[in-house]
Amino acid sequence: MIVKEYSKMSKEELAEVIAGLKKQYDDIKNKGINLDMSRGKPSKKQLDLSMPVLDVLNSNESLNASDGTDVRNYGMLDGILEAKSLLADMVGVNKENVIVFGNASLSIMFDTVSRAYTHGILGNIPWSRFDKIKFLCPAPGYDRHFKISEHFGMELIYVPMTKNGPDMDMVEELVRDDDSIKGIWCVPKYSNPQGYSYSDETVRRFAALKPKAKDFRIFWDDAYCVHHIKFDKKDEILNILDECERAGNFNLAYVFFSTSKISFAGSGISGIASSKENLAEIKKHMSMQCISHDKINQLRHVRFFKNINGITEHMKKHAEIMRPKFELITNSFERELKPLGIAEWTDPNGGYFISFESLKGCAKKIVSKAKEAGLVLTDAGATFPYGIDPNDSNIRIAPSFPEIKELKEAVELFILCVKLVSAQIIYEEG
Amino acid sequence: MIVKEYSKMSKEELAEVIAGLKKQYDDIKNKGINLDMSRGKPSKKQLDLSMPVLDVLNSNESLNASDGTDVRNYGMLDGILEAKSLLADMVGVNKENVIVFGNASLSIMFDTVSRAYTHGILGNIPWSRFDKIKFLCPAPGYDRHFKISEHFGMELIYVPMTKNGPDMDMVEELVRDDDSIKGIWCVPKYSNPQGYSYSDETVRRFAALKPKAKDFRIFWDDAYCVHHIKFDKKDEILNILDECERAGNFNLAYVFFSTSKISFAGSGISGIASSKENLAEIKKHMSMQCISHDKINQLRHVRFFKNINGITEHMKKHAEIMRPKFELITNSFERELKPLGIAEWTDPNGGYFISFESLKGCAKKIVSKAKEAGLVLTDAGATFPYGIDPNDSNIRIAPSFPEIKELKEAVELFILCVKLVSAQIIYEEG
Repeated sequence: MIVKEYSKMSKEELAEVIAGLKKQYDDIKNKGINLDMSRGKPSKKQLDLSMPVLDVLNSNESLNASDGTDVRNYGMLDGILEAKSLLADMVGVNKENVIVFGNASLSIMFDTVSRAYTHGILGNIPWSRFDKIKFLCPAPGYDRHFKISEHFGMELIYVPMTKNGPDMDMVEELVRDDDSIKGIWCVPKYSNPQGYSYSDETVRRFAALKPKAKDFRIFWDDAYCVHHIKFDKKDEILNILDECERAGNFNLAYVFFSTSKISFAGSGISGIASSKENLAEIKKHMSMQCISHDKINQLRHVRFFKNINGITEHMKKHAEIMRPKFELITNSFERELKPLGIAEWTDPNGGYFISFESLKGCAKKIVSKAKEAGLVLTDAGATFPYGIDPNDSNIRIAPSFPEIKELKEAVELFILCVKLVSAQIIYEEG
Repeated sequence: MIVKEYSKMSKEELAEVIAGLKKQYDDIKNKGINLDMSRGKPSKKQLDLSMPVLDVLNSNESLNASDGTDVRNYGMLDGILEAKSLLADMVGVNKENVIVFGNASLSIMFDTVSRAYTHGILGNIPWSRFDKIKFLCPAPGYDRHFKISEHFGMELIYVPMTKNGPDMDMVEELVRDDDSIKGIWCVPKYSNPQGYSYSDETVRRFAALKPKAKDFRIFWDDAYCVHHIKFDKKDEILNILDECERAGNFNLAYVFFSTSKISFAGSGISGIASSKENLAEIKKHMSMQCISHDKINQLRHVRFFKNINGITEHMKKHAEIMRPKFELITNSFERELKPLGIAEWTDPNGGYFISFESLKGCAKKIVSKAKEAGLVLTDAGATFPYGIDPNDSNIRIAPSFPEIKELKEAVELFILCVKLVSAQIIYEEG
């Protein structure tokens, strides 16, 4: 059978295709499927990998850190030394530049914005005092980042993503001229949702930014720093803190990271890395906020992973579980959608997502069709500021949570919805 | 030997006493002691009580909550049901009124203030928009509470503590007339540092407050809710949420609590209890802030304590360790200081502290003398707003951390410093 692109079909051919797809769709819908590809949650099998984390500390073990600190008691506000080292090696920064927090890097990001809002950054005016604060949002991007900015009433400025990272011409120009622009959200490695990694040039241009606002900061969410999927093809990015130092922009970047998708989602450890001056300010604020984070959990992670090699080996096991899921999806798209000329998608070397581009104006309809038949996807538009995708074409696909069998069903249904909605729109517009 | 009160001695007698005390002090100082009675930290023996907490979850155990939730994954933002129940029973509230957080109730309090500051409470104007916000600070009280208010630039208003709680005549009058007063810090049971528990009348008067500010809130830190020391003499207080409801003041109080001084300091679980409306607002904000708290640690605590009886039994073991320390101190004071008429102190039925009242103008000198000889005490004044004790007489004594042998040395040295400083001041003023 020769497959013809939808856009090259006659009205009659298309009508026939649509009728066939509708029947298939109704059949699946009647099956009463219940599937979820909406969030980047690890699967049960991935979580099982970390069960031994629970065994390393028990009532027979010493709970003293390497310097003798009893981790069961208060103190060590910025984390135990060995946890700093482990996380520093994971992100490729110096341990002197790290503060270890609790279970969620998102909370650190929220706090960092909140602190700038209530107290200002390094002596600058608190953001709450301005009528309008703006934040740059490379998109498609991570919805929870954008939501934090929205929550604090900021104006979100859409910056298009490229394969090399955000459009740096635009970023440079914007921050140079407008001192109400106070920050930018970045997922520099295996970006959410496209899986793109910033090129060396992009990182260097970030480090060399000359923002008009003295309190402009890069919010560098290194969420997927060790989350390779294809072990023969690993992305690596330049160290933003080193590059900032080289450019004389010592305080420009905050780097965030966690083990949420390494050990347990929600029960890992997290941290921030930045310049000495930034860290000193954060610690001062933290000393009002808590007495110490969960150091037992810090020690638990160190005892389990031991060092960066332990993390690398562990992430290979994650990759073994993730890779077939990503391949299932990209192979299915390649086979079913490519010949029809109705979609594009990314095929990342790591991270948690595949970014899907439908024909213009189809994303909302596809997501809604899928939902109607029992497949929950991330809301169309969620990857854009204010939830508005200017082309209504981007859909974030999260392959991690369902097991292969369910994922296969989900992908089939998804592809069917893409075909149906695309054929209908071409028919209507044709 | 007949002991004479210092104030009844002649100048000559006093001079002789001072000379003797100075010699004793110099002898101790030369020993090179290094002791700490400054913070309410549990001792090693207390922490050892909780070691089995680490054993209940291991790689052989199911990590599903009672409703089937896999606690290893994201989700359940407000906590697993059984953790809500456990903490609700601990504080004596309904589990529907509880949100479970991470390891630190101080962080919840900080966030609660920060949220009011950035977003306002239930539609009221954010506190950041006011030129001046005031907070009532019953004192002596907990320094970290006052510091949070200070950190947000509030004016701290000193409200004297009585044996029945804060001076309620003053509280009622202040909040009725001044809408810039937005809150009050309370430790209602075994207060820090006096160990006083609020009388039923005090709790009812709190619940019936008619604040001019619609967004006035009672910050009710029930830190020592189950921390009895004398098991034959337990303080119990009325349930503030019930009383607020009865008075029609549904949203007036936030109740904070944690297991920090039950299981592990810094690695426990914590929570907030409040009205449905208050909780809904908090959850909305939380959904921006994190994906979930550490539910594995929540389950760990539930599996270990099982229910409120488990907590009660566990707290009896803490009491066995704490009681001799409190008795050592109060007995020593009784024997050494009472006959001299130079100090008063509390003898609480629970909590973590003994509050010590020296002669007026002596506290700073006593703390400084003790430090000089190697004994660290909480800074004099720390228990008052801005760190300023109007009488310079209050010293917070934290007996928990040192073991008995060290504590004995510490108390001896402390008593010596009290005697020396008191005798000197009476001599100078006399």
